[in-house]
Amino acid sequence: MSKPLFLGIDGGGTKCRARLRNVDGALLGEGTGGPSNIRLDPDLVWTSILTACREALAQAGLKEDDLKGIHAGMGAAGAGQASAVERLLSRAHPFASFAIETDAHTAWLGAFGGGDGAILILGTGSCGYGGVNGQCRYVGGWGFEISDEGSGASIGRELLRRCIWAHDGRAPATPLSDALLAEFNNDLEALIDWVGAARPSDYARYAPLVLEHAGRRDPLGIALMKDAGDGASRIAMRLLELGAPSLCLFGGLSEPLKPWLPPPIQQAIVQPKADALDGAILLGRSASSRRQP
Amino acid sequence: MSKPLFLGIDGGGTKCRARLRNVDGALLGEGTGGPSNIRLDPDLVWTSILTACREALAQAGLKEDDLKGIHAGMGAAGAGQASAVERLLSRAHPFASFAIETDAHTAWLGAFGGGDGAILILGTGSCGYGGVNGQCRYVGGWGFEISDEGSGASIGRELLRRCIWAHDGRAPATPLSDALLAEFNNDLEALIDWVGAARPSDYARYAPLVLEHAGRRDPLGIALMKDAGDGASRIAMRLLELGAPSLCLFGGLSEPLKPWLPPPIQQAIVQPKADALDGAILLGRSASSRRQP
Repeated sequence: MSKPLFLGIDGGGTKCRARLRNVDGALLGEGTGGPSNIRLDPDLVWTSILTACREALAQAGLKEDDLKGIHAGMGAAGAGQASAVERLLSRAHPFASFAIETDAHTAWLGAFGGGDGAILILGTGSCGYGGVNGQCRYVGGWGFEISDEGSGASIGRELLRRCIWAHDGRAPATPLSDALLAEFNNDLEALIDWVGAARPSDYARYAPLVLEHAGRRDPLGIALMKDAGDGASRIAMRLLELGAPSLCLFGGLSEPLKPWLPPPIQQAIVQPKADALDGAILLGRSASSRRQP
Repeated sequence: MSKPLFLGIDGGGTKCRARLRNVDGALLGEGTGGPSNIRLDPDLVWTSILTACREALAQAGLKEDDLKGIHAGMGAAGAGQASAVERLLSRAHPFASFAIETDAHTAWLGAFGGGDGAILILGTGSCGYGGVNGQCRYVGGWGFEISDEGSGASIGRELLRRCIWAHDGRAPATPLSDALLAEFNNDLEALIDWVGAARPSDYARYAPLVLEHAGRRDPLGIALMKDAGDGASRIAMRLLELGAPSLCLFGGLSEPLKPWLPPPIQQAIVQPKADALDGAILLGRSASSRRQP
């Protein structure tokens, strides 16, 4: 009998990635597929997963039939929703075993190899996740409307609010508020129409503008970055208070937001041991070993 | 020829009210109709308006045919949107003249009789509006998502955000956060499902809970009311800075929020001279006199 192989899958809203390693950890192949947030249609998600897997298999010189000897682990956006996981698992999988967890969990598994630690994702949304003594929990990450402090979407939304203040004369105009309002020809009706159709990713596209102006000491830019840093810190503080000895940051805003965190939090930040795909491989390995004692 | 009559109409999202006065200001009749936010279907809105008008006419002993001798003024929710006004006016009106403005404008007209002053509406949403030397302008009131500070909807949404903090351990639990989370059986998934379908009026229904707990010195309740007071103050400060000598408060939250405003703002608050219906009558009178010099 051949030695087992391990496949890690990272399922996101825009693409799916897969990585294949042997039992010694050697890299055999990688692949990419389409959207695989598991809240999407399960047939679409499985097509994306299998596209990524087949590419990884082909690089390793393996065939479709070899899937049944592979233990797979997947970290997926949307996997916090039990009904979405059930929907995905209503289709038969082709692997020797298949374990699924949230993308936060596999990012954490990769970052700390399953040991104590916490991660803070700062992107369009934000989410904290930590594991101590095998106990894992979320801090934040409950969505744009009433959570996701420190995220790009929150920064963008607050920028628009403050620009209305500047337009009304409730707050001084700054180069940042002038720049934003100019994008809407200083017409609040146009801005409000935009808001009516805006999604979190639309708001998040204004985060770079805020960063750029904050870097030039724009008072509004500095106030918004300070607020975002405070929101992110509140999540980080709680993760560390729960016993995580250190913290890994992920997401497009993690580098720019890091200097806005208080020094004692910055000092707790470490580089991840491995990425979320290797976390997914670790998930698949542990699940297979638990099932074959 | 008989002396002219004046009709004031107040068009809101749930009902329409009408009031008829003669040229000397004597009250002749009042009536009520259905929904008349003018963003709604114009046939529905006109049905609501005419139902309210006919009731007022009947009280005055007048007939349908007398409408053509009446000068009407209407303050309407939705009238800030030019396309909604156009849609309403695409149907012929039965009056001698018909003038329409926003409900904020007629509330201001009634409160100050057209003289200098400002109003601050604090209800489900919030909006400031002031007139100085005949120049009127809005401060705030651009909607729930990125404006409406100090409103019931903003208070409710911020309550939910802070209760997530308490649930996560990012902030201390208080009797208020305990009470709110208990409504969702301490299940954040259930809370987030609720948020997914919540409208501003749904969030605003939590404002009384916040007020009640703030009254008992709940730290979270006090923090939320202080924030709401700060948001409302920022609007009021700007209205006064623009030259309004005094301020009238309107809306269900105006009484409870008043003590949370800084004393110099409280001292600028006066009682309105008349209500929005009499403001609408004033609108109808001025429009008719401008048209018949």
